[in-house]
Amino acid sequence: MAKAGSWQEVAKAKREAIAESIPQPWRIDAIPSAAEQRDVTGDYVHQWLSQEEIEITEMDAVDIVEKTSAGIWSAEDVARAFCHRASLAHQLVNCLLETFFDAAIEDAKQLDAYFAKHKAPIGPLHGLPVSLKDQFHVKGVETSMGYVGWIGTFQGQKGTGRERVFESEMVKELRSLGAILFCKTSVPHTLMSGETINHILGYTWNPKNRNLSAGGSSGGEGALIGMKGSPVGFGTDIGGSVRIPAAFNGLYGLRPSAGRLAYEGMSNSMDGQNSVLSVVGPISHSVASLKLLVQALLSQDPWLHDPLVHEIPWRHKCEQETIDLINSSRHGSEKLAFGILEHDGQVTPHPPVQRAMKIIKETLRRLNHKIIDWEPPEHKRGAEILYKAWVFDGGADIHSSLKLSGEPPVPQVTPLYGHEPFQGFSASEIAATNVKKREYQKEYMEYWNSTRDQTGTGRPVDALIMPVAPFAAARREQCKYYGYTTIVNVLDYTACTVPVTCSNQNIDIASPDFKPVSELDQDIMATYDPALYDGAHVAVQIVGRRLQEEKILAIAEHIGQAIHSD
Amino acid sequence: MAKAGSWQEVAKAKREAIAESIPQPWRIDAIPSAAEQRDVTGDYVHQWLSQEEIEITEMDAVDIVEKTSAGIWSAEDVARAFCHRASLAHQLVNCLLETFFDAAIEDAKQLDAYFAKHKAPIGPLHGLPVSLKDQFHVKGVETSMGYVGWIGTFQGQKGTGRERVFESEMVKELRSLGAILFCKTSVPHTLMSGETINHILGYTWNPKNRNLSAGGSSGGEGALIGMKGSPVGFGTDIGGSVRIPAAFNGLYGLRPSAGRLAYEGMSNSMDGQNSVLSVVGPISHSVASLKLLVQALLSQDPWLHDPLVHEIPWRHKCEQETIDLINSSRHGSEKLAFGILEHDGQVTPHPPVQRAMKIIKETLRRLNHKIIDWEPPEHKRGAEILYKAWVFDGGADIHSSLKLSGEPPVPQVTPLYGHEPFQGFSASEIAATNVKKREYQKEYMEYWNSTRDQTGTGRPVDALIMPVAPFAAARREQCKYYGYTTIVNVLDYTACTVPVTCSNQNIDIASPDFKPVSELDQDIMATYDPALYDGAHVAVQIVGRRLQEEKILAIAEHIGQAIHSD
Repeated sequence: MAKAGSWQEVAKAKREAIAESIPQPWRIDAIPSAAEQRDVTGDYVHQWLSQEEIEITEMDAVDIVEKTSAGIWSAEDVARAFCHRASLAHQLVNCLLETFFDAAIEDAKQLDAYFAKHKAPIGPLHGLPVSLKDQFHVKGVETSMGYVGWIGTFQGQKGTGRERVFESEMVKELRSLGAILFCKTSVPHTLMSGETINHILGYTWNPKNRNLSAGGSSGGEGALIGMKGSPVGFGTDIGGSVRIPAAFNGLYGLRPSAGRLAYEGMSNSMDGQNSVLSVVGPISHSVASLKLLVQALLSQDPWLHDPLVHEIPWRHKCEQETIDLINSSRHGSEKLAFGILEHDGQVTPHPPVQRAMKIIKETLRRLNHKIIDWEPPEHKRGAEILYKAWVFDGGADIHSSLKLSGEPPVPQVTPLYGHEPFQGFSASEIAATNVKKREYQKEYMEYWNSTRDQTGTGRPVDALIMPVAPFAAARREQCKYYGYTTIVNVLDYTACTVPVTCSNQNIDIASPDFKPVSELDQDIMATYDPALYDGAHVAVQIVGRRLQEEKILAIAEHIGQAIHSD
Repeated sequence: MAKAGSWQEVAKAKREAIAESIPQPWRIDAIPSAAEQRDVTGDYVHQWLSQEEIEITEMDAVDIVEKTSAGIWSAEDVARAFCHRASLAHQLVNCLLETFFDAAIEDAKQLDAYFAKHKAPIGPLHGLPVSLKDQFHVKGVETSMGYVGWIGTFQGQKGTGRERVFESEMVKELRSLGAILFCKTSVPHTLMSGETINHILGYTWNPKNRNLSAGGSSGGEGALIGMKGSPVGFGTDIGGSVRIPAAFNGLYGLRPSAGRLAYEGMSNSMDGQNSVLSVVGPISHSVASLKLLVQALLSQDPWLHDPLVHEIPWRHKCEQETIDLINSSRHGSEKLAFGILEHDGQVTPHPPVQRAMKIIKETLRRLNHKIIDWEPPEHKRGAEILYKAWVFDGGADIHSSLKLSGEPPVPQVTPLYGHEPFQGFSASEIAATNVKKREYQKEYMEYWNSTRDQTGTGRPVDALIMPVAPFAAARREQCKYYGYTTIVNVLDYTACTVPVTCSNQNIDIASPDFKPVSELDQDIMATYDPALYDGAHVAVQIVGRRLQEEKILAIAEHIGQAIHSD
C-alpha cells in the first residue's frame, strides 16, 4: 500500500478523482483486455451511445459548427454527446488527465442562450467541443503535465496566485471563437516520448489496436480523437508529438512552423530552450477541420498577444494558388511535384508503412503529379542537432520536476535523460549548435531549391512525402526512433499527417530480403509482428517549407481525398 | 617601432594598404585637426569635387536610380563620383576598412553595357552605389571586422576556401538588383560599442562635428553616408548599432525586426547567440531610400535563401493604410496616436536631445496627432535581459578573436567584456533569461494594447517616439548608456531614426535644475558641453511593434517631412 503523502498515493488520489469525475450513468462496468477486444472504436463503443450521440460524435468539426451555427443542434446537446463519448474513451484507453464537463455544459448553455437571443453564432467555432493536451492552462482545472509533483501547483510552484485561474493565450482565443473546452488529455511526464505514460494515469493505449501505443507526447489527444471522443484537439510538437499520435490513430495532424499559432502561456518542458521550439498544432479527422481551427485562430490576431507569433494572417491567395494547381492537374495542364523519401538511411519502415508509401506513390501517379526521389542532406546530421537541444540543460528541468514528488522517470525517457541530471551544454556549445542548425537549414533549403531542375513545373517540389515513423504504431517501450519526425522540427518545416491505410497481417509480411543497416534498424524491424499489428492505422506526412500551412493543408486534403475515394 | 609580425605591424600594413588603395589624384595633402575644421561635410568637402560629382553625390538614392534607370546618368559616372567622395570621407574621418573601386567601376561598366543593349535597367537598384559594414562578405576583398587577427582569414580561420570568394546572401541580392558595391566600412572590433574604433584604422570621427564620435557599431557607415560618400548603406543592430550612427550623423536608419531581411552568410560576433538577434538595416538620407532598398530586397524572396527570414513580402496594404491615415489627418478626420517617452527613468537626455523631443511634440500637435505619455514596463528591466545575452559566453568568442593576433580590447569594450574571458551562463540560466525576455515582451505588448483606451482613435498608439541616445553624439570613450536603443532590441520592435535638428550652443544650455537620478545620470550629463557639441546632429527614433516596417517607414517619412518643411 502506498505510504501516506507518497507520490504513489498522490498519483492514485488524482487518478481516482478523474475516474470519479465521470458521471455514474456513463461508467462501464468491465473493461475488456486487449486480447478480448483489440479495437474499441466504431461499433464497439457505439453500444453505450444513443443514436443521436453517435450522429453528433461521428460528424466532422466543420459540419458540427455548421449545425450549431444554424441552430439545428444545440451547443448543449453537442457538448453532452462528446463528454459522454470522451468518458467512454477514457475508460477504454486511459486518455484524460482533466475533465470539466459541468463547466463545458454551462458554457454550452450560455452559447445556446446567445444564439436564442441573437439568432446568430457567437463566432466561427460556435459550440464546437475542443480537447486540449495537458499543457494548456484552463481556469478551474489544474495542469499536471503528467508530473505527480505538479498536482496542486502552477507548473510545480505553489502560491503563485495563478493556480486554476490563469488561462493560456490560445484558450482565450478558443473561448472567444465560441469553442467549448471540456477536457485535457494525457501526456508522458516530461513530454519527451512518443508513448504516453505517467504515474498518474499509466499508459494510454491505441483505441484501434490496444496492443499498441496511442503515440505521444500528445497521445491522450490522439487516443481521444481516434475514439471520436472529441472532434478536434490541440497537441504540441517538438520532435513529432502532434504527428506521431495523429498518425498512430489514423488522423490528420498539423505541425505548423514556429510562430504561426500562439504558444504563449502554456506549460512546457525546458521552457526557454529556444534553439528548436515546440509548436502547437491541431489534430482531427479531416483537413477541413484543421483548416477551420487554424483560420479561426489566425482571425484573432495572435501576434498582438504572443510575442513569438509572426503577423501572417491566413493567406487565401497562397491556398488558392495551390488549389488552382490541383484543379489544373485534373486536366493535365499543370501538376504538382513531390519529393518521395521512403527510407531515411537510418531505419527501415515496417511493411505496413512501406505499403502506405507505395499507395502514396501510386496515388500521385494516378493524379498526374511528378515524383522525384528525395536525396537531401543527411537526415541523421540534422536530427543530431535536435537531440543536442533536448539535453542542453543536462535534464535539469525535467529532473527538478520529477524530484518535486520523488517519482522516478518512466522507462521511455531514461535513454535520453537518465535518472539524474548530467553535465549540460555551455553557452559556447549552445551557440555552436545554433550555428550548425542554421547551416543545416540553409543546406536543406538550397537542396529544396535545386529540385526546380528536376520537376518540370518551373518550381522546386511542392512538398516532400515520407513516413511519420518506421512503425504503424509503437509497441510498449519500443518507440525508439524519431528521425522521420525530428528532421521536420530541426528544419522548422510545416507538416501534416495523412492517414493512408491499416496494417493487414495477410499482406504486410516482413521481407526475407531485409538487410539491416544498423543494430537499431535490426531492433526496430524485430518489433514488427503482422498478427499483433493487424488493424493498426498507417499514415504518412506531407512536409512543406517553413510557414507553408495554407499550401500543405490544401495538398493534404487533395491527397487524403484521393486515397480515400478509391 | 612595431615588431615584425606583431599585431601592431599587421594592423599598420593593412591601414597603409587601405590608404594606398585611394587613387593618387583623390588624396588630400594635409588633413586639418578638429579644432581647425570641425565640420568637414558640405562646402568643406566640395573643394575637392567637380560640379558634376557634387550633383551626383548630393542626390537621393531614389533620384540616382531614376537617372541611371533612364540612361540620363551612366552607372560608371555615378560609381566614380561616389568612389571619389568616399575616398575624401575616409581621409577626413577614417571610415573605410575595404575599398574595391576598380571592381565597382568594372561592374558599373557592365551595367552600362547592359543598358546600352537592352535600353532598360537590370533591376530596381540599377547603378546605385551601396556601402556595407565590414560584416558582409564580398568576393575579392576580405572581412576583418576590425580584428587584426582576422586579416588574411575567413572569420579568423585560414584555409577555409572561402577567403575572398564567399559572398553573403544580401550581397548576392544587391548585385542581382543592380547595385554597385564599392567599399566596406569600419566597425569597433567585437562590434559591441556605440563608438567605432579598432587597431587597424583607429577612431572614426563624426564628420559634422569631429570632436564627437560617428557612432557605432555601424559607425563607418554613419560617417561615410553622413559625408555623402555613399547614398545608402547597410549596418547591423543588436543594441542600437544602426540607429546610433544614423542618429549621430543626421540620417534615417532602419532597425527592422529580426527575420525581415537576410543576415545569412554574414560574419558576426557571438554567432549562434539566438536570444536577441542582430539584424541588418539600411541607413540613408531619406526614408524613400530606405524604402527603395527594403522593397527591392524583399522582391528577391529572401526567405528562400535565409532560413531565418519570414515569408513576409513588402505589404503595400499595410503601408497604404498608414498613408491613408496620414492623409486624412491633414483634414482632421483621422489622426495618428503616439506614445512619447522623453526620459527613460535612467538617464536624462542632454539639452539638444530634450529640444529635439520638444520639436517632435510640437510637430505632432501641429499635425493634429494625438500624444500620450508613455508609461511602459520599466525599461531598465528589459535592457538588463539584453545585457545578459551579450555575455552568455563570458566573452569567449570575442576574446578568442582578439587572441588570434594578441591585440588588446579597445577601452570601449572592456567595461562589458574585460581583458579575459569570464564565467559564462549555464544552459539553464540561458533558458531562464529567454523566459524572462518573453515575459517582458508580453508585458510590453499588453501595455501597448492597453493604450487603445487613451488614444481616441480606436487603435493603440501607432508608434512610440523617444531619443536614440541621451546625447546628440558621444564624446570619445563616453558612449556609456544604451538604454534608449537596447529596449527596442529586446522587444524586437521596428525602429527608424529621424534627424530633427542640430545642437546649438546658444539655446541648448544645461538646466540649472537638473537633478541626477543616479551617478550614471550625473556622469552622462557632465559630458555635455554646449560649445563642443555645437553643430552636432540630433535625431529621435520612431518605434513600432514587431515587423511593422511598412508602417514605421511611412510614419518616419511623414514626420521627417513635417519637421524639415518648417
